[in-house]
Amino acid sequence: MELWFTEEHTENVRFSIRVDRHIVSEQSDFQKIDVFETPEFGKMLIIDDFVMLTEKDEFIYHEMITHVPMAVNQNIKNILVIGAGDGGTVRELTRYNSVEKIEMVEIDKKVVDISMEYLPFTASRLNSEKVKLYFEDGLKFVKTKENEYDLIIVDSTDPIGPGVELFTKEFYENCFKALKEDGILVNQHESPYYKREQEAMQKAHKKIKEVFPIARVYQAHIPTYGSGHWLFGFASKKYDPVKDLNEEWWNSIKIDTRYYDTELHKGCFALPNYVKKLLSNA
Amino acid sequence: MELWFTEEHTENVRFSIRVDRHIVSEQSDFQKIDVFETPEFGKMLIIDDFVMLTEKDEFIYHEMITHVPMAVNQNIKNILVIGAGDGGTVRELTRYNSVEKIEMVEIDKKVVDISMEYLPFTASRLNSEKVKLYFEDGLKFVKTKENEYDLIIVDSTDPIGPGVELFTKEFYENCFKALKEDGILVNQHESPYYKREQEAMQKAHKKIKEVFPIARVYQAHIPTYGSGHWLFGFASKKYDPVKDLNEEWWNSIKIDTRYYDTELHKGCFALPNYVKKLLSNA
Amino acid sequence: MELWFTEEHTENVRFSIRVDRHIVSEQSDFQKIDVFETPEFGKMLIIDDFVMLTEKDEFIYHEMITHVPMAVNQNIKNILVIGAGDGGTVRELTRYNSVEKIEMVEIDKKVVDISMEYLPFTASRLNSEKVKLYFEDGLKFVKTKENEYDLIIVDSTDPIGPGVELFTKEFYENCFKALKEDGILVNQHESPYYKREQEAMQKAHKKIKEVFPIARVYQAHIPTYGSGHWLFGFASKKYDPVKDLNEEWWNSIKIDTRYYDTELHKGCFALPNYVKKLLSNA
Amino acid sequence: MELWFTEEHTENVRFSIRVDRHIVSEQSDFQKIDVFETPEFGKMLIIDDFVMLTEKDEFIYHEMITHVPMAVNQNIKNILVIGAGDGGTVRELTRYNSVEKIEMVEIDKKVVDISMEYLPFTASRLNSEKVKLYFEDGLKFVKTKENEYDLIIVDSTDPIGPGVELFTKEFYENCFKALKEDGILVNQHESPYYKREQEAMQKAHKKIKEVFPIARVYQAHIPTYGSGHWLFGFASKKYDPVKDLNEEWWNSIKIDTRYYDTELHKGCFALPNYVKKLLSNA
Repeated sequence: MELWFTEEHTENVRFSIRVDRHIVSEQSDFQKIDVFETPEFGKMLIIDDFVMLTEKDEFIYHEMITHVPMAVNQNIKNILVIGAGDGGTVRELTRYNSVEKIEMVEIDKKVVDISMEYLPFTASRLNSEKVKLYFEDGLKFVKTKENEYDLIIVDSTDPIGPGVELFTKEFYENCFKALKEDGILVNQHESPYYKREQEAMQKAHKKIKEVFPIARVYQAHIPTYGSGHWLFGFASKKYDPVKDLNEEWWNSIKIDTRYYDTELHKGCFALPNYVKKLLSNA
Repeated sequence: MELWFTEEHTENVRFSIRVDRHIVSEQSDFQKIDVFETPEFGKMLIIDDFVMLTEKDEFIYHEMITHVPMAVNQNIKNILVIGAGDGGTVRELTRYNSVEKIEMVEIDKKVVDISMEYLPFTASRLNSEKVKLYFEDGLKFVKTKENEYDLIIVDSTDPIGPGVELFTKEFYENCFKALKEDGILVNQHESPYYKREQEAMQKAHKKIKEVFPIARVYQAHIPTYGSGHWLFGFASKKYDPVKDLNEEWWNSIKIDTRYYDTELHKGCFALPNYVKKLLSNA
Repeated sequence: MELWFTEEHTENVRFSIRVDRHIVSEQSDFQKIDVFETPEFGKMLIIDDFVMLTEKDEFIYHEMITHVPMAVNQNIKNILVIGAGDGGTVRELTRYNSVEKIEMVEIDKKVVDISMEYLPFTASRLNSEKVKLYFEDGLKFVKTKENEYDLIIVDSTDPIGPGVELFTKEFYENCFKALKEDGILVNQHESPYYKREQEAMQKAHKKIKEVFPIARVYQAHIPTYGSGHWLFGFASKKYDPVKDLNEEWWNSIKIDTRYYDTELHKGCFALPNYVKKLLSNA
Repeated sequence: MELWFTEEHTENVRFSIRVDRHIVSEQSDFQKIDVFETPEFGKMLIIDDFVMLTEKDEFIYHEMITHVPMAVNQNIKNILVIGAGDGGTVRELTRYNSVEKIEMVEIDKKVVDISMEYLPFTASRLNSEKVKLYFEDGLKFVKTKENEYDLIIVDSTDPIGPGVELFTKEFYENCFKALKEDGILVNQHESPYYKREQEAMQKAHKKIKEVFPIARVYQAHIPTYGSGHWLFGFASKKYDPVKDLNEEWWNSIKIDTRYYDTELHKGCFALPNYVKKLLSNA
C-alpha cells in the first residue's frame, strides 16, 4: 500500500513509514491520537504526529525507563508513573514482585482506552491489582504528595501540548518533595542531536540539576525516535546510578529482557563528549 | 529548495533529507558518487544512493573506528586502512605521533579525488607524509602481506558493489596473516536493526569469529545511518578491547575528541541483549 | 496529519495526497480497495493503489463518460454499464427520463458495498428501479447478448487485474454484437502522456477500430488521474459523435452539469496533434 | 538516483519528480533559478521552486501561447513578449515569416543566460535577427509605448515575486494603450482547479474584462503544471478568437506543430461549466 506516515524530524529531515492501515484516529481533549498498522514496525501509536511507540522497538524505551532505576534500589515498593498511557512502563514494573503499588497519572484517558483496545502488547498489565490509574493532571497530582514514593517515572510526550508542564522546574520540585529520602526520579529526556530536542534536553537537565543533588543522563538506541539517539534522566537524593547498581540482586531475580542488562546499565551512562558538553553547558 | 535525497532504509522506511545543491555526480568504474549540500547536515557524500558521511556527524564514525583500537595498544605504528576514500579515518590516525606509516588502499580513485576537492573536512590529511595511497583492490593487496601491520581498519561500504569481497572469510584470513602477532582488525560492522544490515552483521561476525581468537563488537549512535544504531568489529590475536584499554596513556596524549573518550570506550562494548543474541546465533 | 497516499504515475513521478483518515481497507477476491478522507479532495476511492475517484472531481469523469453518448442519440433506452461499481456512471444516466433500463455488471461486489456505505455521492442511485445489478464477469455477460443495447459504457479500471479482459478484441466484438444497429460503445480510454497509459490507449484504439466503423476519442481534464489528461473512446455503428450531436434536444432537457455542455462536447474531440499521431499509429 | 524535486501543488498535494542531476542553481536579484536533469521529463527549469518548463512538454505551453493569436490575424508583424526568458515563446514566433519584429522584455537576465547555456531546445532562437532583448521591468517598458504592437504576449511566472505586477489592472491598461487598434493580448492565465491558481485566474480575468472589449479564456493539458489544466487569456480590441480564426491561411503556411492545430484552436475555447462559472463570477 502506498500510504506513508511522515514524521518531520526537522523541517529538513523527513522519516517516512509505510502504512498498511490507519486503525484509529481520535481527537481527544488534549491531543490527536492515531494508531497505524505498518509492515516494518507493526502497530504504531502516534500523538500529534509524533511517533510515541512502535510494536517493533517499544521494548527498548520501556526497559530503559524502568530497569535502570529498579536495579539501583531493590527496596522500591511505591511508584508513581506520570504519563505512560500506553501501559508499557507499567508492564515492565509489574514484573517485579517487590513492587507493591504503582500509581499511574495520565491526563488523557483516551490514550489508555485506545491502548487497551489496540495495543495489548503494552497495555496488558494496566489491569494489574497493583496498579491504580488516575486520569488527572500530573503536576497537580504530584503537588499534593509528600515523602511518599520510592520512584517517580515521568514518561511524557515532548514538551509541547499537555507535556509542557512536565518539563518545568516547579514540577521537578514537587517530584522532589513527593519522593522519600532515597527516592529516584527518572524521566524521558529528549535527544541531543536535532536542535529542537537538544534544547529541550538542555532545559530539562538544567532544572533537574538545580533541584536534585544527583542528576545523571543515560542513553539508548531507539531507531523510531528522531535521530535514534534517545536520553533518559536519572535524578536522586542519594543513589548514584552506577556505583549503587545492585547487579547481583537484579541478576538473581531473573527478569528476561531484550535490551537491558546490568552491563549495559553501566555502559549507558557513558555519554559522547558532545552530549556531555551540551549538558554541562545547559 | 524542495529537493530531497531519499535513502530507503528498507522498502517500507524512507529517510529524506532536504538538499540545497547537488554539487557533484559521477559514475566511476565501481559506483555512483554524489555530493550534496544540505541545510541540516552540511555536505553529504553518497555512494550508490547510500549515505556514506555527512559533515554534521562523520566525526562519530571516524572517531569510533580509530580511537577504540588505538587506545588499546600504544605501540601501533604501521597501519593498513582499506576503503576510507573520504579520508576521515586517516585524518584521525594522523593525530597520533606514535603512528609511523599508514597505507591506505582504496579501490576507487574517484572517491579520493572528489573528497579532496569537495570534502576538505575529512580529506585534509590524505596528503600527510605518513600516508601512502594505493588505488587497488583491497583483498588482492592484503593477500601479499604477512606479519606487517599492527592495525588493519576496514572502512568499507555495505557488502554490495565493490564492498562485497571485504566481507568474505578469505579476506579476514588474509588480514589475520597480514597482521603482526598482536595485531588488531577493526571493521565497519553494519547495524542490528533492519533486516538487510542485520544479516550482513551476522555473516561478518560469524566469519571473523572463525578466524580471530578474540572477536568483539561495539556500537555508536550515528543518526544519518539507517536506524542510527551502528556497529564496529574489534578482532585481535591478543588484546581484549576493554581489559587492555590503555586509559592512562590515551588520556595523557590529549587528543581532543567530540564523541569518543575512554569511559565511552568501555561503555560501547555493552551491547543490548537482542544484539548479543543475534551475534551469538550468527 | 502527516499521512500521505502516493500514487506512482511512473517510477520517476510520484503524486502524493495528504490523508486525514484511512476509512476502509479491504482485500476482495479481485483487488485491494481503500477509502481515504483527504483535506484536498474529500473522500477518495483507491483500487490496487490507483486513484479511482475523488469527491472533488469525480463529476468530470462521470459526466464525460455518460453525457457525450447520451447527447448523440435521444432514443437511448437500454444501457449496459460494465464496471462502474462506485455508482457515478449510473447516477448520471438515471437523470435521463428517457432511459428505461440500466444493466450494470460489476465483477466485484465489494466495490459496490463499500461505495454504498462510504461514497453516497456516487452510489446514491444504485438503488434506482431502472437499475439492475449483476455481480459477474463483464466479458462473459456481454457474450450472451445480441442486438440488445442502445449504449454500452465500459467504465473499467486500468488493463491490469480484473480490468484486463475489458481491453481485449474479443470483448469489443462481443460489445458490437450486443449493441443494436445504431448502438454506441463508450469506454475509459486511458491517457496519452505517460508510457504505460499511452500504450494501453494505443492498444485499445487499434482493437476498437478493427471492430467498429466509427471510432473516435475525446478528452477531459481530470487532475487526480496521472497527467490530468484523460481520454474516452466513442465507437459506434452509425453515429458520428460531433455531426450527430443532438444539441437542441440535450439543452431542452435541462440536465444541470458542472463540466459537460454541448459546446465542450464539440471541443473535446479536437485532440492535440501528438495524440492524434499516437492513435493513427496504433 | 533517489533525488526528488517536489512541487507543492497545495499544502496537501505534492508532485515529486525524480532527478538525475541538479545542473545549475542560482539566486538572481529576483528569484531562485534551478535546472534539473530528470529521467521522465528531460531538463526542467524551476523558478522559486515552481516548474517553469520541462523538455518533455514545454511544446504544449509554447505552441498554445503563440499559435492561437497568430492564427487569428495574419498581419501580425510587431510583437511584444513580456517574460519568457527561456525563449520558447520566441522560438515559436520566429517560425512565422510574416513577423517582422519581436521585442522581448525579461526582467531577469539570469533566466536568459541560464536558458542559453542549458536549455537550447527553447532558447535556440533568442539570437534571431528579428528579436530584440530588453532586460527591464515589463510594466515600465510597456508604459512608454502607444499604438505600437499587433500582439503582446505575457508569458509570466505566477503572481508572486517579480510576476506580481504583470497581473495588475494598471499593467493591462498599459498593454491596451501599447496595442494597435486591432491588437491582441495573450497571457498565461493560471489554472481553475486548486485554490491559489483559481483565485489568481479570477482576479486576472476580472481586470482584463474591465479593460478589453473582448476577453476570452482557452485551455490546454500541461501535465507538469499543477492539476494539468492550464489556461490562457485572449483579449483583444477587435478580433474574436474563434469567429476570426484564419484557418485557411494558417494551414497554408505549414507550420509543423505537435499540440496545436486549427481544430484544437476552436475546441480549446470550450471550457468546462465550472470554469465558466468561476470566470463569470470573477
